[in-house]
Amino acid sequence: MNYKPFTDQEVIKYVYDNTNIFENINLLSCEEIGDGNLNLVFRIRDKKNKKSVIVKQALDYLRVAGDNWPLTRQRVKFESECLKIENDLTNGMCPKIYKYDTNMCCIVMEDLVDYEIMRKGLISGKKYNHFANNLSTFLSEVLFKTSDIFMNPVEKKKLMMNFINPELCKITEDLVFTDPYYDSESNNVNPELRDYLENYFWKNNELITNVEIMKEKFMTHSQSLIHGDLHTGSIFINDKDLKIFDAEFAFYGPSSFDIGAVIANLLLNYISWGGKDVSKEFRNDFRNYLKNSIIELWNLFEFKFKKLWDEKANKYYKSKEFRDIYVENLFHDSIGFSSCKMMRRCVGLAHVEDIDEIRDLKKRANVQKLVLKIGEFLIINRNDIESIEKLMSIIEELTSKYEII
Amino acid sequence: MNYKPFTDQEVIKYVYDNTNIFENINLLSCEEIGDGNLNLVFRIRDKKNKKSVIVKQALDYLRVAGDNWPLTRQRVKFESECLKIENDLTNGMCPKIYKYDTNMCCIVMEDLVDYEIMRKGLISGKKYNHFANNLSTFLSEVLFKTSDIFMNPVEKKKLMMNFINPELCKITEDLVFTDPYYDSESNNVNPELRDYLENYFWKNNELITNVEIMKEKFMTHSQSLIHGDLHTGSIFINDKDLKIFDAEFAFYGPSSFDIGAVIANLLLNYISWGGKDVSKEFRNDFRNYLKNSIIELWNLFEFKFKKLWDEKANKYYKSKEFRDIYVENLFHDSIGFSSCKMMRRCVGLAHVEDIDEIRDLKKRANVQKLVLKIGEFLIINRNDIESIEKLMSIIEELTSKYEII
Repeated sequence: MNYKPFTDQEVIKYVYDNTNIFENINLLSCEEIGDGNLNLVFRIRDKKNKKSVIVKQALDYLRVAGDNWPLTRQRVKFESECLKIENDLTNGMCPKIYKYDTNMCCIVMEDLVDYEIMRKGLISGKKYNHFANNLSTFLSEVLFKTSDIFMNPVEKKKLMMNFINPELCKITEDLVFTDPYYDSESNNVNPELRDYLENYFWKNNELITNVEIMKEKFMTHSQSLIHGDLHTGSIFINDKDLKIFDAEFAFYGPSSFDIGAVIANLLLNYISWGGKDVSKEFRNDFRNYLKNSIIELWNLFEFKFKKLWDEKANKYYKSKEFRDIYVENLFHDSIGFSSCKMMRRCVGLAHVEDIDEIRDLKKRANVQKLVLKIGEFLIINRNDIESIEKLMSIIEELTSKYEII
Repeated sequence: MNYKPFTDQEVIKYVYDNTNIFENINLLSCEEIGDGNLNLVFRIRDKKNKKSVIVKQALDYLRVAGDNWPLTRQRVKFESECLKIENDLTNGMCPKIYKYDTNMCCIVMEDLVDYEIMRKGLISGKKYNHFANNLSTFLSEVLFKTSDIFMNPVEKKKLMMNFINPELCKITEDLVFTDPYYDSESNNVNPELRDYLENYFWKNNELITNVEIMKEKFMTHSQSLIHGDLHTGSIFINDKDLKIFDAEFAFYGPSSFDIGAVIANLLLNYISWGGKDVSKEFRNDFRNYLKNSIIELWNLFEFKFKKLWDEKANKYYKSKEFRDIYVENLFHDSIGFSSCKMMRRCVGLAHVEDIDEIRDLKKRANVQKLVLKIGEFLIINRNDIESIEKLMSIIEELTSKYEII
């Protein structure tokens, strides 16, 4: 069968023919539920026995950009292989992969029916108290155990070779680190923000210099197998645990990029409440929850990562001083990447619903300006911020200084 | 024909059958001239018309270590592909490659009959006044034009994939960055130096921490296609120009590793004269030549690299401030790598003839101790040394402070 995007009927037949999950093809129904940019996502369900699976199929183009951005469909290889490795390292913190097909460029995987997308939960004001603990486990296990500090160096380089992922990296290089910092056609600019961008943001050479530093780090620092797109829309969550998915951007890159992505998306949600019609009490309370989650996330990550280092580092990385310098660099770089990931969500092609659901464009621009102010401060001062508590007190200060409600 | 190490007769027949260089097999003679650790090197010569070529064939083991260090013979692929790229980028600053054979694991290449190995020249006190100018061209062209600052990022990652070179990197990781810093069996220790190592050098935690920082950078910073073993024994030179060879360690690594390797080997020669029976005038004069060569090498490299950047950088790396930070980081990291490359030549498996030709072990130990003192100072203070002139004045100060003649 040659590659073509599945229709509903075709994907039902495909799953029935190629897996042992369902017994009767006539009981199966199908729904396309994708809201991402790169793929078709189908849910195939047997109503009778309540089983269901997800089929994710790669498209040839970046969906939001139309047909003009061709992309290798082989990216499902990166996704399925990355999810398998991450599952192994974390005792199952990703969906199970049932089948991966290089020809049809699709993955058949576990349907996480009892989970919701974390971004949607946060937008509705929902708190997840296990989040920092679980995500810090995921990050510390994956980032430590795929690094040179833990792995056999020959095996690490072979794994790295399997995850050379030029086309998906190019998307990040362009959309996160390049286009938002000038008046690029690819940008998606709120007209109420344009004045600020033209007269201030795009003219800020110190900001742009620091973005270039982070970009070069993204392109050259082959530190760990990173997810590469770890925002709150890539996290399935419920009251008990979470699952990480959408790993097609995986490659050997800077560990701090994943940490920074999570923090950025929590901060975007934090800032977004200034543009929403909620009570002051609710806003303060939810921001307090997010603040504590970010602090707890980093502190638990640091604790677990250092514990893994002390117990399992290769014998030639034995110096505690180096361990501490390594983790300190992770921290500062996480702030730098976090900043880039926040700023691009207000200027670049892909935005976040947390902010774009604010329909009043003036209100939205006020929120976006605060994001850009905070992003600017963080990227320029990232190496002088000495702790996660200090980071969050800076966020609080900048918010109370610049927020317009 | 299955792989086996060539005999003299076999290699003559091989070259005659597989190239169009020679006309009459009966006129060919062969000599094995290898003094490296990893390969057989044959010179095949036709006495009548004075043509000659070099055949380099990979062995299965690291020669100095005996049969116990198995190595992929496919490393000749890295060498021949790297030399081809470097030749293209530098208008022929490497030997020409006539044939590369994946099966017999050999390269047939240009015989540089009018050149000598630079290390041997320096040991004999010979000066090469074009060296800094030519090598700075080689380094700036190759390191700039294989980096993300210049290359298409997708092409760069594909090239990087072709140069994932785990086994040869492992040799460097072990012999340059690990074994010399503890009492490893692989070390080659002058008995007169052992006391200093046991009571001081191997106990110096600050030193070891900084070596671990440089090691991790070597393992993770995929910046440019580097030669990976650019010492003065990998440079053929005469009064007019130079050729770079022995590129089997090539991989995508930190640009500063190549720069540091060259500086280290010039400094090793600089320091070695303290243990040799030469006049004070000669020693001072030759050291002055080396000092000026190192200063000129860096300054010309910096000038040419920045010029390339200004004229040819990708449009998204446009900030002059970032350019200057990038080059400043190259400088500091070059000092750090230089230090590691110096120290390992006094403690680790592979030494340099510059120092080991000092037969008196006490005198040799005095020279080695000065190398280790200088290496220690440089790696700990690398980020505070603000210029190449300052570096060389530090070398002069430490030499006059610690040298025992």
